[in-house]
Amino acid sequence: MDIDHGRESDGEMVGTIASCGLLLHSLLAGLGRRAAGFARKVGGAAREDPRRVAHSLKVGLALALVSVVYFVTPLFNGLGVSAIWAVLTVVVVMEYTVGATLSKGLNRALATLVAGCIAVGAHQLAELAERCGDQGEPIVLTVLVFFVASAATFLRFIPEIKAKYDYGVTIFILTFGLVAVSSYRVEELIQLAHQRFYTIAVGVFICLCTTVFLFPVWAGEDVHKLASGNLDKLAQFIEGMEFNCFGENSVANNFGGKDSPQMHKSVLNSKATEDSLCTFAKWEPRHGQFRFRHPWSQYQKLGTLCRQCASSMEALASYVITTSKTQCPAAANPELSCKVRKTCGEMSLHSSKVLRDLAMATRTMTVPSPVNITMATAVKAAESLRSELAENTALLQVMHVAVTATLLADLV
Amino acid sequence: MDIDHGRESDGEMVGTIASCGLLLHSLLAGLGRRAAGFARKVGGAAREDPRRVAHSLKVGLALALVSVVYFVTPLFNGLGVSAIWAVLTVVVVMEYTVGATLSKGLNRALATLVAGCIAVGAHQLAELAERCGDQGEPIVLTVLVFFVASAATFLRFIPEIKAKYDYGVTIFILTFGLVAVSSYRVEELIQLAHQRFYTIAVGVFICLCTTVFLFPVWAGEDVHKLASGNLDKLAQFIEGMEFNCFGENSVANNFGGKDSPQMHKSVLNSKATEDSLCTFAKWEPRHGQFRFRHPWSQYQKLGTLCRQCASSMEALASYVITTSKTQCPAAANPELSCKVRKTCGEMSLHSSKVLRDLAMATRTMTVPSPVNITMATAVKAAESLRSELAENTALLQVMHVAVTATLLADLV
Repeated sequence: MDIDHGRESDGEMVGTIASCGLLLHSLLAGLGRRAAGFARKVGGAAREDPRRVAHSLKVGLALALVSVVYFVTPLFNGLGVSAIWAVLTVVVVMEYTVGATLSKGLNRALATLVAGCIAVGAHQLAELAERCGDQGEPIVLTVLVFFVASAATFLRFIPEIKAKYDYGVTIFILTFGLVAVSSYRVEELIQLAHQRFYTIAVGVFICLCTTVFLFPVWAGEDVHKLASGNLDKLAQFIEGMEFNCFGENSVANNFGGKDSPQMHKSVLNSKATEDSLCTFAKWEPRHGQFRFRHPWSQYQKLGTLCRQCASSMEALASYVITTSKTQCPAAANPELSCKVRKTCGEMSLHSSKVLRDLAMATRTMTVPSPVNITMATAVKAAESLRSELAENTALLQVMHVAVTATLLADLV
Repeated sequence: MDIDHGRESDGEMVGTIASCGLLLHSLLAGLGRRAAGFARKVGGAAREDPRRVAHSLKVGLALALVSVVYFVTPLFNGLGVSAIWAVLTVVVVMEYTVGATLSKGLNRALATLVAGCIAVGAHQLAELAERCGDQGEPIVLTVLVFFVASAATFLRFIPEIKAKYDYGVTIFILTFGLVAVSSYRVEELIQLAHQRFYTIAVGVFICLCTTVFLFPVWAGEDVHKLASGNLDKLAQFIEGMEFNCFGENSVANNFGGKDSPQMHKSVLNSKATEDSLCTFAKWEPRHGQFRFRHPWSQYQKLGTLCRQCASSMEALASYVITTSKTQCPAAANPELSCKVRKTCGEMSLHSSKVLRDLAMATRTMTVPSPVNITMATAVKAAESLRSELAENTALLQVMHVAVTATLLADLV
C-alpha cells in the first residue's frame, strides 16, 4: 500500500511538474508573442514616419542639454535650485512640429511673465492685509487664488481663446498659483519669480534650437502634404470606381471588397488633424513663396470641399455596393444602359484626371492650367448624361470637383 | 504778422486738440465695442452650457483647498517645500469631465511612482560610476536621461499607448528627468521622491473629490446625449427635407438656404469629440444599468453609422440644391413624377419617424419596439419606388437607417 501510495504520489508529482512546465511554457510563449507583437508595432510606427525616431532622439538630446546646464556648477549657482524648472519646461514644451513647439514655448514664456507680475501684486495686497490681522494674508491669498483661477478657467471655454491660447491660460493659472501660494513662506519672492522666468526661458530656448535646427518637422509642410494627399486619395477612389464598375472588364461585385480603395474614409476623418496642423502652422515663420502671409485658411476651405466630395463618394460607394448585392433585374433598355455605363466611365476617368492634376498643382504650387479643359470635358459628359437620365448620383461628384477646381484656381 | 501767426497756431492747436479728441473718442468707442463683443462671447459660452461656470468655480475651489494645505503649518511641515507640487498637480489634472480627471490623475500618480523608482535606480548606478572618476556621475546621468527620454517619447507614437496612456508617459519622462537630474545635488533623494509622490497624491485626491462630488460632469452621459442628439439631428434633417421638397406645399427653392437644417454637418464632424469622450468614459466607474461593463464601443459604432448616414444626407442635400438651381425642364412624365414625389415624401416621413424613435430609445435605453414596423413601411415604400425608378439617391438613406436600426436593436 505504502509503496503504491509512494508511486502514486510520485506520479502525481511528475504530473504536477509536467503541467507546471507546460503552464510555464505556454506563459513564456504568450509573453514572447506579446513582445513580438509589441516589437512589430514599434517597428510599424517607425516605418510609417521615420521622422518620429528623429523626434524621439531630439527630445532626449534637449533633456540631456538641460541636465548639463544643471550639472555645470557656475550655471547652477546663477539660477539656483529652480534650475530644475528648465527640465520641466523641456518635457512639456517639446512637440512634434515646429509650430506646436513655438506656440507652446511662447505661450508658456509669456503666460509665466504675466502671471508672475500679477502674483507679485497679489502678494503685496496680501501683505497689506496682514497688518489688519494675523490670519489676513492666507485668507486674502486663498480668495484671490480662487477668483483668478475660476475666471481664467472660464476663459478657456471661449472658442477663440481655446484655439490659440489654451496652453497659455493653463500656465497662467499654474504660475499664478505657484507664486502667490509660495509667497506666504518664501522670503525673496521677486528673486524666485525672476529665477523661474529665466529657467523657463532657458528651457524654451533649448527646445526651439533642437526643433528648428535638427531635422525640423514643419506643420505647414504637413498641412500641404495632407491637402494634396487627400486629393490624390479621392482620385484613387474614382479610378478604382472606373476600373471596377464602368471599365471594359468591370467586375462590379468586387467593389466594396477588401481590395477596393477605402481611402476616402480617411479623408472624411481628416478634419481634426487638419485643424490642429493649421493652428500650429500659423505660428511658424515664413514658409515657401508666400513668406509670412501664407493662406492657411485656404487649406481648411479646400479640406472642407474635399470632405464634402468624399461624403458624396461614400454615398456613391454604398449605393454601388447595395445595387451589386441586390442583383438588379436585367436592364429593361440594354442600349440606354450601355450608353450610361460608357458616359459614367468617361466621367470617372476625367474626374480622376482632374483630381490628380489638382493634387499635383497643390504640391508644386502652380496654376493648374489644363484642368479647366479636362474639367469641361467631364462636365460636358455629365451634361449629356443628365439629359438622358434625370437622376444620377455620379453627377454629384463632378459638381463637387468643379467647385474644388474653382477654389483651387483662386488659391494657387 | 506776429498776431496773425499766433492766431494761426492757435487755430492749429485747436484743430490738433479736436482731432486728438476725436481719435481718443473713436479709440474709446472701439475699445468699448471690443469689450462688449468679448462680454457677449463670455455670456454665450456660459449660456451654451451652464456646467462650464460650475467647472470654473470647481477649479478655483480645488486650488483654494490646496493652498490651505500649504498655509496650515503642521501640514506644511509634514510635506516640506515640495507641497507646492500639489498646486501644480491640481492645475494640470483638473479636467472638465470626471473620466478625464480620473484618467489624468491615475496616469500621473502611477507614472510618478514608476518613474521615481527607476530614477532612484539610475542614481545608484551613477553613484557606482562616481567611484571610477570625478565626472562619472553627471556623464552617466546625462546618458541615461537621453536614452530613457528618447525611448519613452517614441512609445507615445504607438496608437494604443497614445489613446490611453499619453499623459502618463509624459509624466514618466518628466518625473524621471526631475528626480534623476536633481539627484546630483540633493542629498536626501529618497525623501524627495517620497514627498513628491505624497504631494501629487494629495493633489489628485483633492481634484477627484471636487470633480466627483460637486456637480460632476460624466463623460459617459455626454457620449449618451451625443448619440441620441445625433440621431435627432438626422431626423430633423429628413423632416426639413420632407417639408421643403416632397410635402404638400413644397418650396424646393428654399432648401439649402439659411432656414434649412444644416444639422447633419455637425454630425459629420462629431468623430473627434465622440472618440475622446468614449476614451474618458472608459475610465469612469459604473454608469446606469450596465454597471462596469457599459458597451462604450457600441456608441462608437453607432456614431460611425450616424456619420455614414449623414454623409448620404450631405450628398442628397447638395444634389437637391444643384437640381433646384439648374431649373430642370418640366418632367416629361408628370404622372410618374407625381408618384415619385409622393413615395419620396412617404419615405422621408417614415425614416424621420424611425430616427426619432431610435433617438428616444437610445435616450431611455429601452428596446425600440415599434421601430421595426415603421421601418418595414419605409422599406416597402422604398422598394415600390425602386421598381419604378432604377436609380434614386433617397434610397440610400433608407438603407442606412435600416442598418442603424439593426445595430441599435442589438445594442439596447
